[in-house]
This record gives sequence, structure tokens and C-alpha cells, in this order.
Amino acid sequence: VKEIKVAQIGTGFMGKTHSLAYRALPTFCPADVEVNLVVLADVTEQLASTGARMFGFENWVVGWERIFDHDIDVVDIVTPNDLHPVIALEAARLGKHVICEKPLAVDVAQTLEMVEAVEEASVVNMVCFNYRQTPAIRMARKLIDEGAVGEIYHFRGQYLQDWCVDPQSPFVWRFQASKAGSGSLGDIGSHAIDYARFLVGEIDQVVAMTDTFVKERPLPGSQTMHPVDVDDAVSMLFRFKNGAMGNLEASRFCYGRKNMLTFEINGSEGSLYFDWEHCNDLLYYSARDQEDRQGYRDIKIGPVHPHAEAFWPIAGINMAYFETAVLQACEFVTAIAEDRPAVPDFRDGLQIAEIMDAALQSAAGGGWVKVKQVV
Amino acid sequence: VKEIKVAQIGTGFMGKTHSLAYRALPTFCPADVEVNLVVLADVTEQLASTGARMFGFENWVVGWERIFDHDIDVVDIVTPNDLHPVIALEAARLGKHVICEKPLAVDVAQTLEMVEAVEEASVVNMVCFNYRQTPAIRMARKLIDEGAVGEIYHFRGQYLQDWCVDPQSPFVWRFQASKAGSGSLGDIGSHAIDYARFLVGEIDQVVAMTDTFVKERPLPGSQTMHPVDVDDAVSMLFRFKNGAMGNLEASRFCYGRKNMLTFEINGSEGSLYFDWEHCNDLLYYSARDQEDRQGYRDIKIGPVHPHAEAFWPIAGINMAYFETAVLQACEFVTAIAEDRPAVPDFRDGLQIAEIMDAALQSAAGGGWVKVKQVV
Amino acid sequence: VKEIKVAQIGTGFMGKTHSLAYRALPTFCPADVEVNLVVLADVTEQLASTGARMFGFENWVVGWERIFDHDIDVVDIVTPNDLHPVIALEAARLGKHVICEKPLAVDVAQTLEMVEAVEEASVVNMVCFNYRQTPAIRMARKLIDEGAVGEIYHFRGQYLQDWCVDPQSPFVWRFQASKAGSGSLGDIGSHAIDYARFLVGEIDQVVAMTDTFVKERPLPGSQTMHPVDVDDAVSMLFRFKNGAMGNLEASRFCYGRKNMLTFEINGSEGSLYFDWEHCNDLLYYSARDQEDRQGYRDIKIGPVHPHAEAFWPIAGINMAYFETAVLQACEFVTAIAEDRPAVPDFRDGLQIAEIMDAALQSAAGGGWVKVKQVV
Amino acid sequence: VKEIKVAQIGTGFMGKTHSLAYRALPTFCPADVEVNLVVLADVTEQLASTGARMFGFENWVVGWERIFDHDIDVVDIVTPNDLHPVIALEAARLGKHVICEKPLAVDVAQTLEMVEAVEEASVVNMVCFNYRQTPAIRMARKLIDEGAVGEIYHFRGQYLQDWCVDPQSPFVWRFQASKAGSGSLGDIGSHAIDYARFLVGEIDQVVAMTDTFVKERPLPGSQTMHPVDVDDAVSMLFRFKNGAMGNLEASRFCYGRKNMLTFEINGSEGSLYFDWEHCNDLLYYSARDQEDRQGYRDIKIGPVHPHAEAFWPIAGINMAYFETAVLQACEFVTAIAEDRPAVPDFRDGLQIAEIMDAALQSAAGGGWVKVKQVV
Repeated sequence: VKEIKVAQIGTGFMGKTHSLAYRALPTFCPADVEVNLVVLADVTEQLASTGARMFGFENWVVGWERIFDHDIDVVDIVTPNDLHPVIALEAARLGKHVICEKPLAVDVAQTLEMVEAVEEASVVNMVCFNYRQTPAIRMARKLIDEGAVGEIYHFRGQYLQDWCVDPQSPFVWRFQASKAGSGSLGDIGSHAIDYARFLVGEIDQVVAMTDTFVKERPLPGSQTMHPVDVDDAVSMLFRFKNGAMGNLEASRFCYGRKNMLTFEINGSEGSLYFDWEHCNDLLYYSARDQEDRQGYRDIKIGPVHPHAEAFWPIAGINMAYFETAVLQACEFVTAIAEDRPAVPDFRDGLQIAEIMDAALQSAAGGGWVKVKQVV
Repeated sequence: VKEIKVAQIGTGFMGKTHSLAYRALPTFCPADVEVNLVVLADVTEQLASTGARMFGFENWVVGWERIFDHDIDVVDIVTPNDLHPVIALEAARLGKHVICEKPLAVDVAQTLEMVEAVEEASVVNMVCFNYRQTPAIRMARKLIDEGAVGEIYHFRGQYLQDWCVDPQSPFVWRFQASKAGSGSLGDIGSHAIDYARFLVGEIDQVVAMTDTFVKERPLPGSQTMHPVDVDDAVSMLFRFKNGAMGNLEASRFCYGRKNMLTFEINGSEGSLYFDWEHCNDLLYYSARDQEDRQGYRDIKIGPVHPHAEAFWPIAGINMAYFETAVLQACEFVTAIAEDRPAVPDFRDGLQIAEIMDAALQSAAGGGWVKVKQVV
Repeated sequence: VKEIKVAQIGTGFMGKTHSLAYRALPTFCPADVEVNLVVLADVTEQLASTGARMFGFENWVVGWERIFDHDIDVVDIVTPNDLHPVIALEAARLGKHVICEKPLAVDVAQTLEMVEAVEEASVVNMVCFNYRQTPAIRMARKLIDEGAVGEIYHFRGQYLQDWCVDPQSPFVWRFQASKAGSGSLGDIGSHAIDYARFLVGEIDQVVAMTDTFVKERPLPGSQTMHPVDVDDAVSMLFRFKNGAMGNLEASRFCYGRKNMLTFEINGSEGSLYFDWEHCNDLLYYSARDQEDRQGYRDIKIGPVHPHAEAFWPIAGINMAYFETAVLQACEFVTAIAEDRPAVPDFRDGLQIAEIMDAALQSAAGGGWVKVKQVV
Repeated sequence: VKEIKVAQIGTGFMGKTHSLAYRALPTFCPADVEVNLVVLADVTEQLASTGARMFGFENWVVGWERIFDHDIDVVDIVTPNDLHPVIALEAARLGKHVICEKPLAVDVAQTLEMVEAVEEASVVNMVCFNYRQTPAIRMARKLIDEGAVGEIYHFRGQYLQDWCVDPQSPFVWRFQASKAGSGSLGDIGSHAIDYARFLVGEIDQVVAMTDTFVKERPLPGSQTMHPVDVDDAVSMLFRFKNGAMGNLEASRFCYGRKNMLTFEINGSEGSLYFDWEHCNDLLYYSARDQEDRQGYRDIKIGPVHPHAEAFWPIAGINMAYFETAVLQACEFVTAIAEDRPAVPDFRDGLQIAEIMDAALQSAAGGGWVKVKQVV
């Protein structure tokens, strides 16, 4: 049994999720490890101490630098995006394995620095595109790999939310380019880009448009307005290297769409459709079925499907966000235990940063932009 | 009671549909008219005579020019696209009202000629974007007009079919640019462009990509291959003049999507979603509902909704394609009876041709293209 | 070509529907007939004359007896239920073919009289359970006949509407036992019973409960209340002769369910599900599919499916109520042309009356009631 | 902080679920408690020791009696049903709080003994109808309590699965009356009965039918067949004490329905619909909405809804089975911390046993059976 001592920085939604997943590993993850939650950091004593109690950490510190006072193997970064690089670089310098929320950094240059640091340090590194852990998406990948969809003609992806439509919704770091990098693009669109690559392949070129519908927002608990300098929405067309056509839209301005993360893939033998809001259903159409009984099959994901074996005895019990977090943590600790790269790693994160950079360039200047290939 | 004597050219799917609609008018259309189906034309005696019997025409002729031997008021054009202009021009020259399937012609220049001809002749003219007649789409328009959706941020449209995926599906005129103008773009995408304009407004600029997945097809009943020179699929981004972001995709290569014609509109007060495959459901989300009970409402369209009053006593009885054809015919004959323009008219068809032309230019040359405004 | 001269009695919803269907027959029905709409009857000159104009009848009369002044072959009965028997008996006596709306009469005794009359007269007779004409239901039957569902374990049916929930909704004949026979049971439940028999087989015994939620209603345009003496809702369990378990519910008190007519059938090899509100979708689950890709298939009904060949060129164009009416009329005139029984005929209507009678007996007295078998 | 020391008996699906929930309490449950997993029992060393490691128990024992060798406060019973009573009685005798899986016992008599034991011992007792913990069901209850549905006319419930259709699926204790009490009725139908009571009220009388489609099954890993003496399916009608009509079906023979747990409630002001397979959606129809925009609202359950506040920051992140288990454990430990009864308690379990007993009596003897009221 390999012991893995975890330090985590951040106590927000992702701090909650990651810590919960670590504690659930013994139940669901076959890796021969013992994960100990050693220390939790945040910017105030209140946040750090409350977090430590709720999330099961033995210790807490104020200020991320203090985690290194403890004996740790892993640094888990769940801070605002602009802090990812400095923490990751220090962790790599000290030979710690690193798992980091997405997007890795606010721009390509910083992302590249992070990649170089972890690769030079030869530490296990992973970027948290947790949705690709969804068993339904794994089943989609299996069907594609088996040729059940045939040659792919179309990919269309969406990630739509509605929590920003209200102009009185306060200014937070996600609306600030220097802290977030981009808006809907990096926050949610990056997930859709991730599974576009995971399912269909690399993206060759892109054209995009963006908009910022609400130009300024009140600071929290205040009447003072602060300008928003990130995209509220992005829409893009792209061409995959394998020739498939793609499009993708990310917006936080779609009333009624709470966390609608979809894809549709159409190929020469069949089609696939998925919507995270019904995350236990994978729709699959097979043109090989007898003609008069073809139709999108609503496959209810359960223990016969990839990535779902460890959870519940039948389909329909349902899995959700929690399970994706467990699968992600399991991949990370298994990679450490087996001394192999984790998937997706920082280099995947860099490729996604390149795609987002091309999209932002296109949105700013018009026209198609070639995507730099770094994997 | 005004008598309206109809000549129809063409006996395919649309010939069947239009003639059926005329015969149903007394039951559903309040216009004070008596429509008589005088003469039907097609290219062979077999087609014309069978059609006349099945569709209820008094006479039939071989060759469209022969319709003018009969005493007629209206020319109804349901031929391949390349024949639309010559027939429409002759009809206009002779002072006949004209109703014509979409797209009006194979390019902008010919479409413009048609517009000029009918406008000079002052005849009632209508282009058959029948889907905008759908009661659910009318209800969407009503909600938008009332401000229920607020300021519009997003429009996304799709028209997806799958009848072309099989490469053995034979070469027909719809695959030939000289006869069809374009492929999926004009055949189906034009409908989505029509309701984008109908619901949101004029389009200012566009960027598009197209592809032809199957480059040649066998001639009907033959092994000889004929090249395909139209788009199998088109995907585009656009900006409306009112600032809204738009995107739209049309493809006949989406297995499982038989006639999936959708839109989603997101605004500052709510959202709308529609899919023709469930054409009696309009989904409407109101951000004005109490917070804990907001949700997309599945409005079942029935007699309390616009354009549906004449049909059935309760929602759930269901309407479909037939009813859109009746509503379209009703609008046309009512315009004649009331001596007013029909909606949508040839000038609407021209504006759509301009948008399609801009999309094809963009697909050929890259980058954003400004749409010429002609309405 | 056989000429068929039709007299129709009644100008309500069903009068509209039946007449529309006759006029559409040349387009869709292969029968070698020429149907002429000779005479329309209703109880006032206003109703009859307006109906004749809207529905395309050559003549109109006030009072059903007057139809026999005209030269007719067929009597089409679309009156309130209590008038069905007297008209049908007279029609049979005069050797006319008869088509009659459901339920055939207000009780078993009168229904039996009707059956005996038409059988003695050897006229073609048909009862209008139009929903079984739905192509999706025909495809369900085809799958069952082929064994795709295997041995049937379960049938569950629903017919739910909501137009009676408002207690101010006025008293009409449908709320009166002497005119309607029963309430939801006969009005809508009978359709579900019809396709239960059509798809699964005869019903052996039944237990039922009913309720009348609104005990009196205002007479139309009045404050005077009239008692309601029919069921607002009925719920029943039954056992088919082949051993399958069944249940069925009919109610006009289900807010949001406009015309929700469903069935689910589960068998040893698969399942079927259908909801009329999405009447172009048949859901089919095959346990013979590979385990990891089983799922309810959403079969979009189109020209490759039974009963849908004559209509539209691809699935997704959609069919609805109109098409069921055409198919029903086509079956009736084809039976006349071919001098064969129509399906379903009056004897089917009698069997359904027996099942309804057993249900009402059970609801009144408690316990299981054996259904008399008459087919 | 109150310490709660837990002993758990059983390491199957429910053992996994309960233990996982306890470990997640600090993150999600506001109760001021510290839960320690002290000892886990099962029938073999292999099961017990593996379980202890995977589920986080400090100790394990072989044989449930041995748990009392440890210092414990709570006995958590997740064994086959026939063992529930003896364990619960011993726990109560020793003054331990008890949480027990459903159904409580194999018959009413044993259930009553359990109720008397825990009530006499004044220990906190809870029965694990976890689905009523679903936030969507809590929101349904809130809407009903607020009068948003009005007077209730109809309840219909379903619990459908398909894991038993295959006759080769081996004989396990769930197919044996002496161990399980009943089949689908107690295993799954009891959940639907639980929320029928929770949402609508007590059931006054019932009529039911049952069937056993596969009469014998092979013993695990063997060719030897063992007779099945429980119901494979049950279907029932009932009348609530408040007058509402109800029906309910439970079957494990419905191919394609993996864990389809539904209800629909129709009242004088609106309707509700829920299907566990899409457990984050509550459908709500309000007849108070403006007439032309009424429709079932798809409410996506999130932090603004009851019971969901503690989990995720927005709707659409999704909850599933895990969250119901956490909520159930939270209710239990909170009741202990606050020294108040837990809900639902053993007496609720007894009332459900009475309803099931009435259903089985009816199925055996025919006719309606009055339900004994014990709450």
C-alpha cells in the first residue's frame, strides 16, 4: 500500500469536491494506496479551519506557501486561475505531484511554463477536466473506437449556463481577465474543447466570435460597478485535423440551461448524443440496425459500461458529479501508484490553451486562425 | 366570394402538399374565396395525368408553358429550383399571382430578377417557407413581441437530416449546383435562416464553413457516378443587426435526425426552444417565475395559440406538416382576396438569398462577410 | 372506379375530421373509388348549411332522417352517442354501409342491437377507433407479431386530458349518462381499450374504480347547475386471456395532459412505449441488442413503416390526427370497394362495450368482473 | 460535538451506500456530531475484512452478535430482510439507536414487534426509504403543502426494473418469501408506497393483482432450480383517505426500465411529475399560469430547493443516489443529536407493511381490502 499525503489549496466548490473524492477512494478505487489528507490552505483562518473540519484534513494553514511546512506528496490546486502557475511551479520545484483545476493558467505562456516545470521535475501532473470522466462519455469513446459511429462528419458541442444573466449578479474573479484568463470560454467552454479532443481528435483551425453582454457588475455587497473584461459567451466553428466539421458554443447567458453540457457526433455509421443534465443517458443511433427499427437508443449507463463498474449494482441508480470527481481522483492516485503519467495531463491543458488562444485571436481579429499543435 | 383559379407546375412532394392544402381551405381558412384547381403541369403525361387525378385538378398539361392556355389567376411553382425564375417571370408578365417553393432561384442575380418582375407586375407573390407557419413558431414570435424573452442574446438554429449519408443514395437534382443552387444550405438551411429573421431580425454579417462528404453519387438506376458540386453541410456564425449572436447548422449527414429543425433563443428575461420533430411543443423559460419553480415550460400548442385556432378543439390532438401547408395557402389566397402583399414574399426570399450568398462566399474565401440588406 | 356517395350526420369536431379525410382520399388512398359527399345533416339550418360549405357537401338537410331523401351509399354518424343506434338501425334497414363514432351506444344492449342490425343487413360497418390507425401503433403491432417483444408480461395504458378540471367548464352532453353512456371511460378510455385488444389480445376480467370530482356544472351560458352523472376518471386493472397483466387509466382531470394517450408493453424479449402527444415516435427496447448498447430506441415513424407509406417522403415531416382520419376513411372505402368487412367493425365496438360494462359493474359493486366474450 | 459510534451489519450495496454517506456527513450535514465507524459485521471474514477496508470501519467481526462487543451507539442494519427483526430487537434491548433497510421485516407481525421494541426502548429508529430524501420529491412536497397543486385527484406511481426478466438470472434471497417477505412489492413497490403517503396521505383501501412470471430459477453457479415464491410484479388501485384515486405498479420485468421510479399527481390547481431516472428534474404544471403559456415546467433542482442547499453551487451539477444516502444519514444522526424522532421511523415502516399486507390479501383473494391504520 502506497501512502499518498495530500495538500490542498482552496476551499470553494472544487475544494469540497476534490476532498470528498479522496475520502471516497477506498470504496470505489482499486488503486493500492492510502490517501491521507494532510493539510488544507486558504486565505483566511476562517476558511481554512472550517474547510479542514468539513473536508477531513488533519491540518490547515493560512497562505498556500505554508503547505510545504508539512510532509506531503501531492499538491491539489483549487484556487482562482491566476494562482495556479506560481503554486504549480513551486510544487514541481519541490518534486510534488500536482493536480490542478482548469484552465491551467490565464494564458498560453504561463501554461507552457507550468508544463515545462512538471515535465522537467518528472512529477505526475493532471488537469481537472472532470467531465471526460463521465461514464457516458467513456462509453461514447468506446463506441467511436470500435467504429460504431464510422467516419466522423460532425461534432457539435455546447456548454450553456444561466447564472450570469442577471446584471446585478456581483463581480467576482471569474469576470476579470487577469484572474480568469477568459470568461465562458475558459470556465466552461474548455470542458467542451476537452471532450471534443477526447472523442474526435485534434483541432486544426478555428473561427470564433465572443460578446460581453453585461459590461460592468457591482462589487459584492456594494453599489460600486466594476468593468467586466472577459467574454460572456463564445461561439466557434472549427475543423478537426481528421477533416470533421466542428462547432461549439459556451455561454453563461442562456436562461433555463443550468449546466447543459452536450455533444452530438454524426458519422458514416451512426450518431451519438449526450447532455450532462441527463448524465446517465447516452444516445446512440446505429445505421446498422434494421431499417424499420432504427432510432436513437437511450442507453442507461450502469455497471456494464466503462468507468461505471465500481459504483452501483444496476443502471438507473444513477451517477452524477460526485462520481466524476471520484474517477478523476482515482486516475490521479493510480498514476502515482503505478508511476505513470496521468490523463489528461498538463500538456493536454496546454493544447486546450492553444485552442482557446486561437479562438480569442479570431474573435478579436476576424477570420480563421490555425491552432498550434503541442501534443 | 372571390374565385381563384390555380395552375400548379410540379407533382412531387410539394405538388402533393400544395394541392392538398388548397382543397382543405374551405374547412380551415376564413378567406372569402373559392379556390379551383384548374390545371396541373409536369414533364410527362404520366406524371401530369396521375397527379391531376390524385391532387384534384380539372386538367393537366405536359410542359409548364401550356398552363397559360387555361384561364388562371395563380401560378404555383413546385419544380426544381432552376426552373423557378423562367416560370415566375412569365407568370408575372401575364399578371398572374405567383407562389413559389424555396429557394427562389439558384443565385442572387436570378432571385433579384424574379423580385423585380413580380413587383413591377404588382402581383401577389409568396415564397414557401412553410415552417414559419407552424403555430408553435407563431407563439414564439408572440412571446418575443410581448417582451417575454427580453433583449435577445443568442439564436441557435439547426436543420439536420440523414437521407444523404448513404453514398449509394442516387444523384438527383438536389446534388447539382446548376439546378439547386446549393445543397443543404438552400434546401434546408434556408428554412432556418427564414425563422431566424422572422423571430430575431436581420443578419448583418456571417462566417461559414461547408463540406461535401460524398464527392460523387451513382445516377439513378445506374452504376455511373456523377460528381456532387453542392454542400452536404454548412455551419455558420452570424451577428444580427440588433447585436444578438447567432449560429446555424444545416446538414443532411446526421444519422438519426430525420427532419430536426430547431431553434433556441436566449434573452434577458427568458428563453425559447423548439424542435420540429416535436412540433406541437414550444418550450418557454421565464425568469419572471418564482425562483424555486422556474423551468422550461412545455407548452402544448392548441386552439388558444396563434395560427392554431382553426384546427382542432384541444391541444394534444396535434398538428403537423399538413397544417403548415394549409396556413401557407390560406395566407396566399387571403392576400389575393384582400389585395395586399403576402408574407413572406419574394423580397424576403431575396434577403435569404443574400444571406446564403454571403455564407457561400465566406466558406469559399474565409472570414466574415457582410450581408447586403435588400428589405 | 366505384362511386361511393356519402351522407354525414353531425358537424362538430368529428364531422370536420371525417369530411376532410374523404376529400383527401384521392391523394393518399389507393382504393379504386370515387367518394362524393352528397349530403350533410345537423339539427339547425345554420349548422348544416355552414357545415356543407366548409366540409364540401353538395347538399344539406335539417334532421338526420332527411338524408335518406338523397341517393346515398354510406351513412357516417358523428352525433352524440345516444343517437348512434337509431340512425345506424335505419341505415342498416335501408342497406347503407355505416361508419360510426365511438362508443357505438350508451350501453351494451343498444350496441348489440346495432351489431345485429348491420350483420343482418350485411352492410360494411366500422367503428371509429381512429388512434389504432396511427402508423406508430401499427409498427408496434408489427414488432409484436414478429416476436420482437416476446411473450407479453405487462400492458399499461393511459388516456389523460385536462379540459374538465375547471368546475366552471359548462355542462355538455358528454357529462350526461343518458347521452354519453359513460364519461372518461367511453369518451377516451375506450380508445385505450381498443389498442389494448389490438396489440395484446382479449381481456378476461377486470377490476375498476371511478370517481366524479365535479358533481355539477353550469348549463352553457347559464348559472343553473346540472348534475354530472358520469365518471370523470376511471382506473382499472385487468388480466388478458393470454395471461398478461394490464392496467389502464382514463381521466379528464389531469392538468397538463392535453391528449396523452400512452401504452407500454413489456415482454420477454423487449418493450414498447408510445405517447400520442409525440405521435411520430415509437420507443422500442430490444433485449437482443448487445448488452452494453441496449436502450429504448426512438423510432421516428416514416415511409418505411406500416400505414405511413402513402404520406410523406421522409420521417420527421410528421403525421398527426389528420393522417389517422385519412387512414380510417381509406380502410372503410376500401372495404366497401372490395366487399369485405372493415376493421374495426361494430362487433369490435361491442366487445369494447362489454369491457366497459364490466368495469362499471366492478366500480359500482367492488371486486373482479369477468368480461363477456363476443368476438 | 456529540460522538456517534456506528456498528453496521452487512456489506452489500446498502452497506457500501450507508458507510459512504456517514463518511461524507462532515462535508454536507450541519448536525453537530462526530460519526465514527466502529465495527462492521458480515457472515465471512472475507466479506467483513474487505468491507471494513473499503468502507472505512476501524474493526470487523464475523456474525452480527459480535458487534455488541464494541462500544457503539448505533446499529445500522443492511442485511437480508429476515434478519432485520432479530438484530433490531437485540439492539433495542441494549438501548442502541437503530437504522434499518426496508422493508423492515417479512410480515406485519414481525414488523410490529420491531416497532414495539424500539418504542419501548425509546431509541431513535429510522427506516431507509431513501428516495423520499430526493430533493425533487421534497420540492414536490413543498408545492403540495403550499397548495400549488390544489385538491389532489390522482396519484399514480411506478417502480419498474428489468434485472429479473432473464429466467437464467440466478435464485437469490430476494426471490424467497421466507427471506424477503415479498418480491417486487416489498423490494421496490414499498418505496413508491412510501412517497405516496409522504406526498398525498394515508391509503384507505386497496385492490391488487400479482404475478410470478418465472416460476423457478437456477441456484447461483448451479443447474439446480429453486422455486420462486414471491411476486415478480404487482399492480394495484387504491383510494386515499382524503378521497384521491391512486394506482401503483411495481415490476422487475420491464425491459428498458432500469430503475424507473415515477409519480404523477394531478390536482385542482396543477400537476407534478417525477421520474427518478432523471432525478434532478421535477415537472410542475400550474393552471394559474396565463392560459396561452401553461405547460409542464421542467424545474432543474439545485441549491434554491429543499434538501439540496448543502450540495452544489448551481442546478445542473446534478445529484443522484449518493446525495439521498447522505441526506438520510444526516436525518438519522441529527435526530440522535437533537434527541427527537427520525423520519420516516419504524412506525412508518409498519404502516407500509400494513398496506403491502392488504395488497397481498387482495391479490390472493380478490376484491378490495381495507388497510389497517397504525400511525
